[in-house]
Amino acid sequence: MIPIVSIVGKSDVGKTTLLEKIVRELRTRGYRVATVKHDAHSFEIDHEGKDSWRHKQAGAVLSVISSPSKLALVTDMDHDLTLAEIREEFIRGVDIIISEGYKREDHPKIEVYRRELRRERLCTEDEHLIAIAGDPSDPPKDVPLFDLDRPGELCDFIEARFLRKGHEPSS
Amino acid sequence: MIPIVSIVGKSDVGKTTLLEKIVRELRTRGYRVATVKHDAHSFEIDHEGKDSWRHKQAGAVLSVISSPSKLALVTDMDHDLTLAEIREEFIRGVDIIISEGYKREDHPKIEVYRRELRRERLCTEDEHLIAIAGDPSDPPKDVPLFDLDRPGELCDFIEARFLRKGHEPSS
Repeated sequence: MIPIVSIVGKSDVGKTTLLEKIVRELRTRGYRVATVKHDAHSFEIDHEGKDSWRHKQAGAVLSVISSPSKLALVTDMDHDLTLAEIREEFIRGVDIIISEGYKREDHPKIEVYRRELRRERLCTEDEHLIAIAGDPSDPPKDVPLFDLDRPGELCDFIEARFLRKGHEPSS
Repeated sequence: MIPIVSIVGKSDVGKTTLLEKIVRELRTRGYRVATVKHDAHSFEIDHEGKDSWRHKQAGAVLSVISSPSKLALVTDMDHDLTLAEIREEFIRGVDIIISEGYKREDHPKIEVYRRELRRERLCTEDEHLIAIAGDPSDPPKDVPLFDLDRPGELCDFIEARFLRKGHEPSS
Protein backbone atom coordinates (compact mmCIF):
# COMPACT_ATOMS: atom_id res chain seq x y z
CA MET A 1 0.00 0.00 0.00
CA ILE A 2 1.51 3.31 -1.06
CA PRO A 3 1.82 5.63 1.97
CA ILE A 4 -0.08 8.92 1.91
CA VAL A 5 1.03 12.11 3.71
CA SER A 6 -1.14 15.23 3.56
CA ILE A 7 0.14 18.80 3.69
CA VAL A 8 -2.61 20.81 5.36
CA GLY A 9 -3.05 24.33 6.66
CA LYS A 10 -5.23 27.37 6.25
CA SER A 11 -5.51 29.02 2.87
CA ASP A 12 -2.46 30.86 1.53
CA VAL A 13 -0.24 29.65 4.35
CA GLY A 14 2.22 28.13 1.87
CA LYS A 15 1.09 24.53 1.40
CA THR A 16 2.04 24.34 -2.27
CA THR A 17 5.47 25.87 -1.64
CA LEU A 18 6.23 23.32 1.08
CA LEU A 19 4.93 20.49 -1.06
CA GLU A 20 7.22 21.58 -3.90
CA LYS A 21 10.22 21.54 -1.57
CA ILE A 22 9.35 18.08 -0.25
CA VAL A 23 8.82 16.67 -3.74
CA ARG A 24 12.12 18.10 -4.99
CA GLU A 25 14.01 16.75 -1.98
CA LEU A 26 12.46 13.26 -2.14
CA ARG A 27 13.10 13.10 -5.86
CA THR A 28 16.73 14.04 -5.28
CA ARG A 29 16.88 11.13 -2.85
CA GLY A 30 15.69 8.77 -5.55
CA TYR A 31 12.04 8.36 -4.61
CA ARG A 32 9.14 8.42 -7.03
CA VAL A 33 6.50 10.78 -5.69
CA ALA A 34 2.87 11.26 -6.72
CA THR A 35 0.94 14.34 -5.66
CA VAL A 36 -2.77 14.94 -5.24
CA LYS A 37 -4.37 18.36 -5.05
CA HIS A 38 -7.95 18.74 -3.89
CA ASP A 39 -10.07 21.32 -5.59
CA ALA A 40 -13.42 22.08 -4.03
CA HIS A 41 -14.78 23.67 -7.18
CA SER A 42 -14.63 22.93 -10.85
CA PHE A 43 -11.15 23.42 -12.24
CA GLU A 44 -9.89 24.05 -15.71
CA ILE A 45 -7.06 22.09 -17.21
CA ASP A 46 -5.82 21.76 -20.77
CA HIS A 47 -5.79 24.54 -23.31
CA GLU A 48 -8.87 25.74 -25.15
CA GLY A 49 -8.86 24.67 -28.76
CA LYS A 50 -6.36 21.83 -28.43
CA ASP A 51 -7.50 18.45 -29.76
CA SER A 52 -7.68 16.81 -26.33
CA TRP A 53 -9.70 19.78 -25.06
CA ARG A 54 -12.04 19.46 -28.05
CA HIS A 55 -12.58 15.75 -27.32
CA LYS A 56 -13.69 16.50 -23.78
CA GLN A 57 -15.87 19.44 -24.84
CA ALA A 58 -17.60 17.24 -27.40
CA GLY A 59 -18.88 15.09 -24.54
CA ALA A 60 -16.29 12.41 -23.79
CA VAL A 61 -16.64 11.39 -20.16
CA LEU A 62 -12.96 10.54 -20.12
CA SER A 63 -10.23 11.85 -22.39
CA VAL A 64 -6.60 10.74 -22.61
CA ILE A 65 -3.67 12.29 -24.41
CA SER A 66 -0.68 9.99 -24.67
CA SER A 67 2.89 10.57 -25.81
CA PRO A 68 6.08 8.54 -25.39
CA SER A 69 7.10 10.59 -22.34
CA LYS A 70 3.84 11.73 -20.76
CA LEU A 71 0.19 10.82 -20.43
CA ALA A 72 -2.69 13.00 -19.27
CA LEU A 73 -6.25 12.08 -18.47
CA VAL A 74 -9.32 14.18 -17.67
CA THR A 75 -12.46 12.43 -16.51
CA ASP A 76 -15.87 13.38 -15.23
CA MET A 77 -16.64 12.35 -11.66
CA ASP A 78 -19.95 11.89 -9.92
CA HIS A 79 -18.51 12.32 -6.44
CA ASP A 80 -15.49 13.64 -4.60
CA LEU A 81 -13.00 10.77 -4.44
CA THR A 82 -11.17 10.02 -1.22
CA LEU A 83 -7.40 9.77 -1.30
CA ALA A 84 -7.73 6.00 -0.86
CA GLU A 85 -10.01 5.83 -3.92
CA ILE A 86 -7.59 7.95 -5.95
CA ARG A 87 -4.71 5.70 -4.87
CA GLU A 88 -6.67 2.59 -5.79
CA GLU A 89 -7.92 3.82 -9.15
CA PHE A 90 -5.19 6.01 -10.53
CA ILE A 91 -1.83 5.75 -8.80
CA ARG A 92 0.80 3.15 -9.66
CA GLY A 93 4.56 2.83 -9.48
CA VAL A 94 5.37 5.45 -6.87
CA ASP A 95 6.91 5.23 -3.40
CA ILE A 96 4.75 7.84 -1.68
CA ILE A 97 1.75 10.09 -2.26
CA ILE A 98 1.89 13.67 -0.96
CA SER A 99 -1.46 15.42 -0.97
CA GLU A 100 -2.23 19.09 -0.68
CA GLY A 101 -5.39 19.47 1.34
CA TYR A 102 -7.69 16.63 2.41
CA LYS A 103 -7.63 17.84 6.00
CA ARG A 104 -10.78 15.88 6.86
CA GLU A 105 -9.34 12.49 5.93
CA ASP A 106 -7.60 10.12 8.28
CA HIS A 107 -4.13 10.12 6.76
CA PRO A 108 -0.95 11.38 8.43
CA LYS A 109 -0.87 15.19 8.20
CA ILE A 110 1.78 17.86 8.32
CA GLU A 111 0.36 21.28 9.09
CA VAL A 112 1.95 24.40 7.67
CA TYR A 113 1.73 27.27 10.12
CA ARG A 114 3.24 30.76 9.92
CA ARG A 115 2.90 33.04 12.89
CA GLU A 116 2.96 36.21 10.75
CA LEU A 117 -0.49 35.32 9.41
CA ARG A 118 -1.95 35.68 12.93
CA ARG A 119 -4.45 32.88 12.59
CA GLU A 120 -5.47 29.80 14.51
CA ARG A 121 -3.86 26.46 13.91
CA LEU A 122 -5.91 24.04 11.80
CA CYS A 123 -5.20 20.64 13.39
CA THR A 124 -5.26 21.26 17.11
CA GLU A 125 -7.48 18.28 17.82
CA ASP A 126 -6.39 15.97 15.04
CA GLU A 127 -4.84 12.67 16.08
CA HIS A 128 -3.47 12.24 12.55
CA LEU A 129 -1.22 15.30 12.83
CA ILE A 130 2.37 14.05 12.73
CA ALA A 131 4.33 17.30 12.45
CA ILE A 132 4.15 21.06 12.13
CA ALA A 133 6.16 22.96 9.57
CA GLY A 134 6.56 26.61 10.43
CA ASP A 135 6.80 28.75 13.53
CA PRO A 136 3.82 28.41 15.83
CA SER A 137 3.83 30.82 18.76
CA ASP A 138 2.63 27.92 20.86
CA PRO A 139 5.00 25.10 19.88
CA PRO A 140 3.39 21.67 19.65
CA LYS A 141 3.95 19.30 22.54
CA ASP A 142 3.19 15.98 20.89
CA VAL A 143 4.57 16.35 17.39
CA PRO A 144 7.90 17.55 16.01
CA LEU A 145 8.32 21.04 14.61
CA PHE A 146 10.23 21.64 11.37
CA ASP A 147 11.62 24.75 9.75
CA LEU A 148 9.89 25.60 6.47
CA ASP A 149 13.25 26.56 5.03
CA ARG A 150 14.91 23.24 5.88
CA PRO A 151 12.92 20.70 3.89
CA GLY A 152 15.77 18.21 4.20
CA GLU A 153 15.00 17.74 7.90
CA LEU A 154 11.32 17.26 7.22
CA CYS A 155 12.18 14.76 4.49
CA ASP A 156 14.47 12.85 6.90
CA PHE A 157 11.39 12.50 9.11
CA ILE A 158 9.11 11.45 6.23
CA GLU A 159 11.71 9.02 4.93
CA ALA A 160 12.28 7.40 8.32
CA ARG A 161 8.58 7.09 8.96
CA PHE A 162 7.18 6.12 5.57
CA LEU A 163 9.90 5.16 3.14
CA ARG A 164 12.34 2.80 4.77
CA LYS A 165 10.03 -0.01 5.71
CA GLY A 166 11.56 -2.70 3.60
CA HIS A 167 12.10 -1.12 0.24
CA GLU A 168 14.73 0.83 -1.59
CA PRO A 169 14.09 3.93 -3.65
CA SER A 170 12.63 2.88 -6.97
CA SER A 171 14.90 5.03 -9.14
CA MET B 1 -13.54 -5.61 -22.97
CA ILE B 2 -14.31 -2.04 -24.00
CA PRO B 3 -14.34 -1.77 -27.83
CA ILE B 4 -11.84 0.55 -29.48
CA VAL B 5 -12.40 2.37 -32.80
CA SER B 6 -9.67 4.55 -34.27
CA ILE B 7 -10.24 7.61 -36.44
CA VAL B 8 -7.25 7.78 -38.76
CA GLY B 9 -6.22 9.82 -41.78
CA LYS B 10 -3.48 12.08 -42.99
CA SER B 11 -2.68 15.25 -41.09
CA ASP B 12 -5.22 18.06 -41.17
CA VAL B 13 -7.81 15.95 -42.98
CA GLY B 14 -10.35 16.59 -40.21
CA LYS B 15 -9.94 13.71 -37.76
CA THR B 16 -10.68 15.79 -34.67
CA THR B 17 -13.77 17.32 -36.26
CA LEU B 18 -15.18 13.90 -37.15
CA LEU B 19 -14.32 12.53 -33.72
CA GLU B 20 -16.19 15.43 -32.12
CA LYS B 21 -19.27 14.69 -34.21
CA ILE B 22 -19.17 10.98 -33.32
CA VAL B 23 -18.73 11.68 -29.61
CA ARG B 24 -21.61 14.17 -29.59
CA GLU B 25 -23.89 11.77 -31.43
CA LEU B 26 -23.05 8.74 -29.29
CA ARG B 27 -23.50 10.79 -26.14
CA THR B 28 -26.89 11.93 -27.38
CA ARG B 29 -27.75 8.26 -27.80
CA GLY B 30 -26.88 7.62 -24.17
CA TYR B 31 -23.44 6.05 -24.49
CA ARG B 32 -20.46 6.89 -22.34
CA VAL B 33 -17.48 7.55 -24.59
CA ALA B 34 -13.77 7.79 -23.79
CA THR B 35 -11.35 9.34 -26.25
CA VAL B 36 -7.63 8.89 -26.70
CA LYS B 37 -5.41 11.23 -28.66
CA HIS B 38 -1.91 10.21 -29.63
CA ASP B 39 0.77 12.83 -29.52
CA ALA B 40 4.12 11.92 -31.03
CA HIS B 41 5.92 14.70 -29.23
CA SER B 42 5.85 16.17 -25.78
CA PHE B 43 2.62 18.00 -25.11
CA GLU B 44 1.69 20.69 -22.65
CA ILE B 45 -1.35 20.47 -20.48
CA ASP B 46 -2.41 22.41 -17.42
CA HIS B 47 -1.76 26.09 -16.86
CA GLU B 48 1.59 27.48 -15.81
CA GLY B 49 1.58 28.63 -12.21
CA LYS B 50 -1.42 26.63 -11.06
CA ASP B 51 -0.87 24.41 -8.01
CA SER B 52 -1.22 21.15 -9.93
CA TRP B 53 1.26 22.46 -12.53
CA ARG B 54 3.68 23.40 -9.73
CA HIS B 55 3.43 19.88 -8.26
CA LYS B 56 4.46 18.32 -11.54
CA GLN B 57 7.20 20.86 -12.17
CA ALA B 58 8.65 20.17 -8.72
CA GLY B 59 9.32 16.60 -9.82
CA ALA B 60 6.23 14.52 -9.12
CA VAL B 61 6.16 11.61 -11.55
CA LEU B 62 2.38 11.62 -11.32
CA SER B 63 0.09 14.45 -10.32
CA VAL B 64 -3.65 14.38 -9.72
CA ILE B 65 -6.13 17.21 -9.26
CA SER B 66 -9.48 16.06 -7.96
CA SER B 67 -12.80 17.84 -7.54
CA PRO B 68 -16.36 16.59 -6.95
CA SER B 69 -17.13 16.74 -10.69
CA LYS B 70 -13.81 16.16 -12.45
CA LEU B 71 -10.42 14.53 -11.99
CA ALA B 72 -7.26 15.11 -13.99
CA LEU B 73 -4.00 13.23 -13.93
CA VAL B 74 -0.64 13.89 -15.58
CA THR B 75 2.04 11.22 -15.39
CA ASP B 76 5.49 10.63 -16.79
CA MET B 77 5.83 7.68 -19.12
CA ASP B 78 8.88 5.70 -20.12
CA HIS B 79 7.35 4.39 -23.33
CA ASP B 80 4.54 5.02 -25.76
CA LEU B 81 1.55 3.09 -24.46
CA THR B 82 -0.58 1.05 -26.82
CA LEU B 83 -4.32 1.61 -26.84
CA ALA B 84 -4.76 -1.73 -25.10
CA GLU B 85 -2.38 -0.63 -22.33
CA ILE B 86 -4.22 2.68 -21.96
CA ARG B 87 -7.54 0.82 -21.78
CA GLU B 88 -6.17 -1.58 -19.18
CA GLU B 89 -4.51 1.04 -17.00
CA PHE B 90 -6.67 4.12 -17.23
CA ILE B 91 -10.12 3.58 -18.72
CA ARG B 92 -13.13 2.46 -16.72
CA GLY B 93 -16.89 2.83 -16.91
CA VAL B 94 -17.34 3.66 -20.59
CA ASP B 95 -19.09 1.86 -23.45
CA ILE B 96 -16.56 2.61 -26.19
CA ILE B 97 -13.15 4.17 -26.76
CA ILE B 98 -12.67 6.37 -29.83
CA SER B 99 -9.06 7.15 -30.60
CA GLU B 100 -7.61 9.82 -32.82
CA GLY B 101 -4.56 8.37 -34.53
CA TYR B 102 -2.90 5.05 -33.70
CA LYS B 103 -2.94 4.06 -37.36
CA ARG B 104 -0.29 1.39 -36.80
CA GLU B 105 -2.30 -0.55 -34.25
CA ASP B 106 -4.61 -3.46 -34.98
CA HIS B 107 -7.93 -1.94 -33.92
CA PRO B 108 -10.89 -1.23 -36.21
CA LYS B 109 -10.21 1.99 -38.11
CA ILE B 110 -12.29 4.60 -39.85
CA GLU B 111 -10.28 6.68 -42.32
CA VAL B 112 -11.15 10.30 -42.95
CA TYR B 113 -10.52 11.21 -46.57
CA ARG B 114 -11.32 14.41 -48.43
CA ARG B 115 -10.72 14.58 -52.16
CA GLU B 116 -10.05 18.32 -52.14
CA LEU B 117 -6.78 17.68 -50.32
CA ARG B 118 -5.48 15.73 -53.35
CA ARG B 119 -3.54 13.19 -51.36
CA GLU B 120 -3.26 9.43 -51.21
CA ARG B 121 -5.43 7.36 -48.92
CA LEU B 122 -3.78 6.20 -45.71
CA CYS B 123 -5.22 2.70 -45.19
CA THR B 124 -5.26 1.14 -48.64
CA GLU B 125 -3.70 -2.10 -47.43
CA ASP B 126 -5.06 -2.22 -43.91
CA GLU B 127 -7.28 -5.17 -43.05
CA HIS B 128 -8.50 -3.30 -39.96
CA LEU B 129 -10.12 -0.54 -42.02
CA ILE B 130 -13.87 -0.81 -41.45
CA ALA B 131 -15.14 2.37 -43.13
CA ILE B 132 -14.21 5.54 -44.94
CA ALA B 133 -15.67 8.90 -43.98
CA GLY B 134 -15.41 11.43 -46.75
CA ASP B 135 -15.40 11.52 -50.53
CA PRO B 136 -12.67 9.40 -52.09
CA SER B 137 -12.39 9.74 -55.88
CA ASP B 138 -11.92 5.97 -55.93
CA PRO B 139 -14.74 4.71 -53.67
CA PRO B 140 -13.79 1.76 -51.48
CA LYS B 141 -14.97 -1.66 -52.61
CA ASP B 142 -14.75 -3.59 -49.36
CA VAL B 143 -15.84 -1.09 -46.73
CA PRO B 144 -18.78 1.29 -46.45
CA LEU B 145 -18.44 4.96 -47.25
CA PHE B 146 -20.01 7.62 -45.01
CA ASP B 147 -20.67 11.30 -45.48
CA LEU B 148 -18.62 13.46 -43.11
CA ASP B 149 -21.63 15.69 -42.65
CA ARG B 150 -23.97 12.84 -41.63
CA PRO B 151 -22.39 11.51 -38.45
CA GLY B 152 -25.68 9.86 -37.51
CA GLU B 153 -25.23 7.29 -40.27
CA LEU B 154 -21.67 6.57 -39.20
CA CYS B 155 -22.86 6.23 -35.61
CA ASP B 156 -25.60 3.78 -36.68
CA PHE B 157 -22.79 1.69 -38.15
CA ILE B 158 -20.60 2.00 -35.03
CA GLU B 159 -23.54 1.25 -32.77
CA ALA B 160 -24.60 -1.83 -34.72
CA ARG B 161 -21.08 -3.16 -34.86
CA PHE B 162 -19.71 -2.34 -31.40
CA LEU B 163 -22.43 -1.25 -29.04
CA ARG B 164 -25.37 -3.59 -29.25
CA LYS B 165 -23.74 -6.83 -28.34
CA GLY B 166 -25.63 -7.52 -25.20
CA HIS B 167 -25.65 -4.28 -23.32
CA GLU B 168 -27.71 -1.16 -23.04
CA PRO B 169 -26.36 2.37 -23.02
CA SER B 170 -24.95 3.11 -19.58
CA SER B 171 -26.65 6.50 -19.16
